[in-house]
Amino acid sequence: MPGLHLIAELHGCRCSLHLLNNVALLQDLCLATCSTSGLTPVGLLFHQFGSAAAPAGATGAVVLAESHLAVHTWPEARAVTLDLYVCNFSQDNSAAARLAWQCLVDAFAPHRVVVRELQRGLPGPPVARRTGGESD
Amino acid sequence: MPGLHLIAELHGCRCSLHLLNNVALLQDLCLATCSTSGLTPVGLLFHQFGSAAAPAGATGAVVLAESHLAVHTWPEARAVTLDLYVCNFSQDNSAAARLAWQCLVDAFAPHRVVVRELQRGLPGPPVARRTGGESD
Repeated sequence: MPGLHLIAELHGCRCSLHLLNNVALLQDLCLATCSTSGLTPVGLLFHQFGSAAAPAGATGAVVLAESHLAVHTWPEARAVTLDLYVCNFSQDNSAAARLAWQCLVDAFAPHRVVVRELQRGLPGPPVARRTGGESD
Repeated sequence: MPGLHLIAELHGCRCSLHLLNNVALLQDLCLATCSTSGLTPVGLLFHQFGSAAAPAGATGAVVLAESHLAVHTWPEARAVTLDLYVCNFSQDNSAAARLAWQCLVDAFAPHRVVVRELQRGLPGPPVARRTGGESD
């Protein structure tokens, strides 16, 4: 399926260390950013490394009707990796993805960003539109 | 952080249509494959498109201590996209990722696979090992 996959390594993140360390903050940022950018979260799963008293980063994914966002943080290195993949099956979600992407990068305020964009999938024969009202 | 990201589009999947359509089957496959390959699931979130009576594909992610697996299916096109990203922060998880990857591809039995491998991250200064016993 055709789609856009934005991939980045963020180095030297100048945001609050809490954002890199606290799973609740990270989860809230990711969910709010997806929603306000026009993407459609259908669920999320985040995991806290370390403990509440001694957090050691967080990792997680927001599953989207359009595909997914995945975020992993290394607060000790002030590093973050981001993956945002949107399928453009029944509509072009690229603009929403780029908006969400920029909001996330701005939130982490990295000193250096390495970004790659992949075009996903290949054109194929027409297929019936997915039912259920939640697909892309 | 250095890591390996395996990305694929699977076309013409000759597996049972149930595997592409049924979120429980897909979730079980992904979780079991990660676990038996030596990866460390810390959570998962899968979503069924359509309904139980009229399924229309599934989408989801297994969040790993090593990073993540994301899977999206389009049964009407017999297509699947796979993303398996492992960080090699404190050990090289590439072999486990490749093993899991091959098991997943074999399970979907695609007629055609488009695979890309990305090296993630950049070498950085040494950092303290993450605590909590669940990191990569």
